[in-house]
Amino acid sequence: MRIGVLTSGGDCPGLNAVIRSVVHRAVVDHNDEVIGFHDGWKGLLECDYRKLDLDAVSGILARGGTILGSSRVQPAHLRGGVEQAKGHVADLGLDAIIPIGGEGTLKAARLLSDAGLPIVGVPKTIDNDISSTDVTFGFDTAVTVATEALDRLKTTAESHQRVLIVEVMGRHTGWIALHSGMAAGAHAIVVPERPFDIAELAAVVGKRFEAGKKFAIVVVSEGAKPREGTMEFSSGATDVYGHERFSGVANQLSVELEERLGKEARPVILGHVQRGGTPTAYDRVLATRFGWHAVEAVHHGRFGMMTALRGTDITLVPLADAVQHLKTVPADRYTEAECVL
Amino acid sequence: MRIGVLTSGGDCPGLNAVIRSVVHRAVVDHNDEVIGFHDGWKGLLECDYRKLDLDAVSGILARGGTILGSSRVQPAHLRGGVEQAKGHVADLGLDAIIPIGGEGTLKAARLLSDAGLPIVGVPKTIDNDISSTDVTFGFDTAVTVATEALDRLKTTAESHQRVLIVEVMGRHTGWIALHSGMAAGAHAIVVPERPFDIAELAAVVGKRFEAGKKFAIVVVSEGAKPREGTMEFSSGATDVYGHERFSGVANQLSVELEERLGKEARPVILGHVQRGGTPTAYDRVLATRFGWHAVEAVHHGRFGMMTALRGTDITLVPLADAVQHLKTVPADRYTEAECVL
Amino acid sequence: MRIGVLTSGGDCPGLNAVIRSVVHRAVVDHNDEVIGFHDGWKGLLECDYRKLDLDAVSGILARGGTILGSSRVQPAHLRGGVEQAKGHVADLGLDAIIPIGGEGTLKAARLLSDAGLPIVGVPKTIDNDISSTDVTFGFDTAVTVATEALDRLKTTAESHQRVLIVEVMGRHTGWIALHSGMAAGAHAIVVPERPFDIAELAAVVGKRFEAGKKFAIVVVSEGAKPREGTMEFSSGATDVYGHERFSGVANQLSVELEERLGKEARPVILGHVQRGGTPTAYDRVLATRFGWHAVEAVHHGRFGMMTALRGTDITLVPLADAVQHLKTVPADRYTEAECVL
Amino acid sequence: MRIGVLTSGGDCPGLNAVIRSVVHRAVVDHNDEVIGFHDGWKGLLECDYRKLDLDAVSGILARGGTILGSSRVQPAHLRGGVEQAKGHVADLGLDAIIPIGGEGTLKAARLLSDAGLPIVGVPKTIDNDISSTDVTFGFDTAVTVATEALDRLKTTAESHQRVLIVEVMGRHTGWIALHSGMAAGAHAIVVPERPFDIAELAAVVGKRFEAGKKFAIVVVSEGAKPREGTMEFSSGATDVYGHERFSGVANQLSVELEERLGKEARPVILGHVQRGGTPTAYDRVLATRFGWHAVEAVHHGRFGMMTALRGTDITLVPLADAVQHLKTVPADRYTEAECVL
Repeated sequence: MRIGVLTSGGDCPGLNAVIRSVVHRAVVDHNDEVIGFHDGWKGLLECDYRKLDLDAVSGILARGGTILGSSRVQPAHLRGGVEQAKGHVADLGLDAIIPIGGEGTLKAARLLSDAGLPIVGVPKTIDNDISSTDVTFGFDTAVTVATEALDRLKTTAESHQRVLIVEVMGRHTGWIALHSGMAAGAHAIVVPERPFDIAELAAVVGKRFEAGKKFAIVVVSEGAKPREGTMEFSSGATDVYGHERFSGVANQLSVELEERLGKEARPVILGHVQRGGTPTAYDRVLATRFGWHAVEAVHHGRFGMMTALRGTDITLVPLADAVQHLKTVPADRYTEAECVL
Repeated sequence: MRIGVLTSGGDCPGLNAVIRSVVHRAVVDHNDEVIGFHDGWKGLLECDYRKLDLDAVSGILARGGTILGSSRVQPAHLRGGVEQAKGHVADLGLDAIIPIGGEGTLKAARLLSDAGLPIVGVPKTIDNDISSTDVTFGFDTAVTVATEALDRLKTTAESHQRVLIVEVMGRHTGWIALHSGMAAGAHAIVVPERPFDIAELAAVVGKRFEAGKKFAIVVVSEGAKPREGTMEFSSGATDVYGHERFSGVANQLSVELEERLGKEARPVILGHVQRGGTPTAYDRVLATRFGWHAVEAVHHGRFGMMTALRGTDITLVPLADAVQHLKTVPADRYTEAECVL
Repeated sequence: MRIGVLTSGGDCPGLNAVIRSVVHRAVVDHNDEVIGFHDGWKGLLECDYRKLDLDAVSGILARGGTILGSSRVQPAHLRGGVEQAKGHVADLGLDAIIPIGGEGTLKAARLLSDAGLPIVGVPKTIDNDISSTDVTFGFDTAVTVATEALDRLKTTAESHQRVLIVEVMGRHTGWIALHSGMAAGAHAIVVPERPFDIAELAAVVGKRFEAGKKFAIVVVSEGAKPREGTMEFSSGATDVYGHERFSGVANQLSVELEERLGKEARPVILGHVQRGGTPTAYDRVLATRFGWHAVEAVHHGRFGMMTALRGTDITLVPLADAVQHLKTVPADRYTEAECVL
Repeated sequence: MRIGVLTSGGDCPGLNAVIRSVVHRAVVDHNDEVIGFHDGWKGLLECDYRKLDLDAVSGILARGGTILGSSRVQPAHLRGGVEQAKGHVADLGLDAIIPIGGEGTLKAARLLSDAGLPIVGVPKTIDNDISSTDVTFGFDTAVTVATEALDRLKTTAESHQRVLIVEVMGRHTGWIALHSGMAAGAHAIVVPERPFDIAELAAVVGKRFEAGKKFAIVVVSEGAKPREGTMEFSSGATDVYGHERFSGVANQLSVELEERLGKEARPVILGHVQRGGTPTAYDRVLATRFGWHAVEAVHHGRFGMMTALRGTDITLVPLADAVQHLKTVPADRYTEAECVL
């Protein structure tokens, strides 16, 4: 068989581990040929690719990023993109395509699958917001990086009697905030699923100080927003250039909390470190298993499907199911964490 | 309510996180009183304990070890141990006991539960060999430590054209070897579940050198054994003092492989570093959830049960089920890893 | 003897290691009594302290922060502060004070020393900008944290064809930028000692892209500023609230570079993670040695001095020398790094 | 100019950083040509090499091992080796050779230098035992790895009331034991420079238990030996095969201490993890500076010299001085550590 693989969307620790696993399983065990498209769907649309043999994937298992590059280009963005993709698949004699990507990528995968292309998707997101799978690779690494940062920040907050507001990734869902906040023992966790009331947040933090504690750590998802009418809020505060992108929710929360509590409050925005670098052992194992099972799915003709983790098993679920809705943090997980507002 | 908690058996990253979680949930949310027995069942049998309030568990979430101490004492070891335990539970007015431990501890928990004591167990093992739960806390940390060591060892092996045989924990099951071996891209993984044929192992490694590769990494569980009749083997090689405990399977494999392959082979025995120190974020979250749900089980009177992870949910399973058999690595997981002998 | 110890100024990994070392040396080896003032000079001025015995410092060697707390209060801030300090030293029967702190703290130490108090200082700064010592504890940890972040960010930048501008600590000196930039292989390093020309920086980065590279990493000290007249620059850009503190040089550089290069540029501000948490082994050894030698200095009556590292030796230098000027990055260190503008 | 570079001897984190730095400085700044010999001196003797341009060293700064490979072959081992080396240097038109290695390599470098070859050495050893330089790259990484292991082991020892005897590298000198032991707060440090008295060691550890402590950590260099006549000792205990290499001093100490103290004692031998993998930021900076200055030395014709760190400066010292004697731990460093026997 001849299989094409591509990585699309934002960076995510484990992408290379999937690529390597696909190549190992396909080439060594099935005697397949594997090609890798450059820069995501862009490579497919522009027929820009290279052959992936064992040497090409040697030493990449633990490496961050993707040797194939990535982009945010989607076939649907391009007039005639789907037809072009079909044409190139035919020209290249491909028996299957394995796109590795997040929500947008999987939607594109579904589109192409519906258009008749033989596709097996591999879900990828550090945000953990793809439904139909217990977890995706990249999430554990993001949580680990955030937790290590929180561990470091805690001692500073304690020694200096401060409130630290730590902004972690998560535009639509609070998974990283929830897990890193639980792992680091944060005193409040603010997630997009539950718009916050600033007065309530201030009360929670204030109670700690009243109880004689000298510091507090608040973890907040970048996508968290105040309950309507409770706080003046700019979802993209402007900087001196009039750009909206720099000021995040942590900045605004720290100003508000400092004023309300009369305690020094400081924002820390962890940013891109959460989505780069060496994947954790957990993510490498999961990514490797996804790659292996994607090749198996190809050989069993199970197209239009996506690999998924269910318990300890890797299964296949329809692409159609996977992209229907975001997987948000369920209410009982908040209760467990106790400190989710 | 009045709840007693204890930690028993070998060290395991996450024990303190469970203790802290039990205290938080019980004291803050239910207004319970919690006492901690010292050194496992020993503390219960000797009525040696201390009160655990919020201050007592402050700052322990990320700390390795157990603030309560541990021992390998089991109530059944002691003549009249079960009766003694019952007596102390009555004297202390305990409404529940939450023992945190591995197979032996959970068996003792079942014994005491059958004898009428109100018990909710929390499973603990770095080996991941307790059935009825997808995974136990401590395992992810052990795999992470082993993987980091393998990452380091790989570059040395490569630069010096060696075979490194790395012995990881796992007396009866190969979970740590499987996961760390997959995560680090080991070239052969040897597990207790599949007695190895030394000739076959030598052939696998030898093939790598024939293909022009300059090194190989073999990961082996401490409990791995040769297929009968294939190799002279001492399950506990003696040292100069006649003690059997020091020489492990890695030592013997390295001697054999060096002779068979004519390549320098070196054993590395990772040892206790795998079971100590700060738990990973994953293990802290799991341990915290286990503690939370154990208290909930107590308040719902669900005695004779044990917390368990199923998918992304924490559930309760009968202690009786949990200790019936070891959870060994299933065959399809070997196939995925490819390099398991 | 009776010795008072205090920690003052910003957080710095290794503070607890110094405290522990002072107590160990003084109590175990000299049979001294040690008291610790709370929250820096504030504790001395308010006579707020506690006794420090071996138990009090047990387990703190590797812990971030300071068990004594810190503040930015200086005796000179307070009318009659120096007299008050002298009074309390007399009242408490102290034979020596060991203040651990940065430039401000050491200046205060000198002031008090000149006023006749028996003082031996221990220098502390993650910025490495105290002269008279080769290096201070905390610096290695800050560089390590920054380097790990840069390692992670590199793969993301590469996969996504971006310029990442990473802001590290260093208000007046570029030591952290220089070392972390060298350690991570940054493509440009911008330091306060050399006001930058934005056109020149854009040219350096642009040349990389012309050479076919797909990403660039720029490390910039928080205190870096443009050469006069070369770029509109706000040393404290305002946010929606009119607060100046959030927008740093990295934000402004990323806007400028994106416009000039036509490449996606993103700022990452590492922030407080650089100054908290577990110290590196290097910093623990240095901090421990500083504490040991501070006690020795006390017992030899070498007051008005500060511990310092020279080569591999710990020596004593006059407090007067230590605080005369900031230790900036010398020109030949730039040349070595090559990529310093 | 045309420069040859090679790496020789045991693995050491930072080798690739030196190679990269040599190539960057030579190629970019001086327009030199650089070739890399394979597998140390062997490559020079067999004229086995490859060209090293910027692409060849891209991405290797943080990678462990050496892209050139290494071996323990020395020119003097080979009849006519020196003449052969001279011949190849002439044939290849080399203006300089930069060998990167430890004591043996530097001795060979001196031999070849005395024979008229243009050589600038770069010292390398995780053991830190090369005199004339404050420190060598690789040492900080080894200490860091050992300290992280000790941090992990401490919690296990504490929870289980054990003595752990941790063997670290250091055949002839105790630097790694001293620094990691100080960094981790070990309770006894045993080094080769001071043959130990087992009774004295047992007394030191025993005193801890008498004082109510529940565990002890002993760090021992692999090359440590008992004072003559104080303990039966096998410098290479035999395993079942009659091989001497597996049983180390930690094994023997743990048997002895267990017997003398009546406490459970366990050996942990850290082994090769200390010398492989990603170098610390400190080692990357030092290695990069060494490479840079080696090229400068070549361009200034300063042959027969070796790069060295003195304080914060990189200087050049005669190869002859560097290899005259091992740098052992001086007595005052023991005193500081207090717990060195």
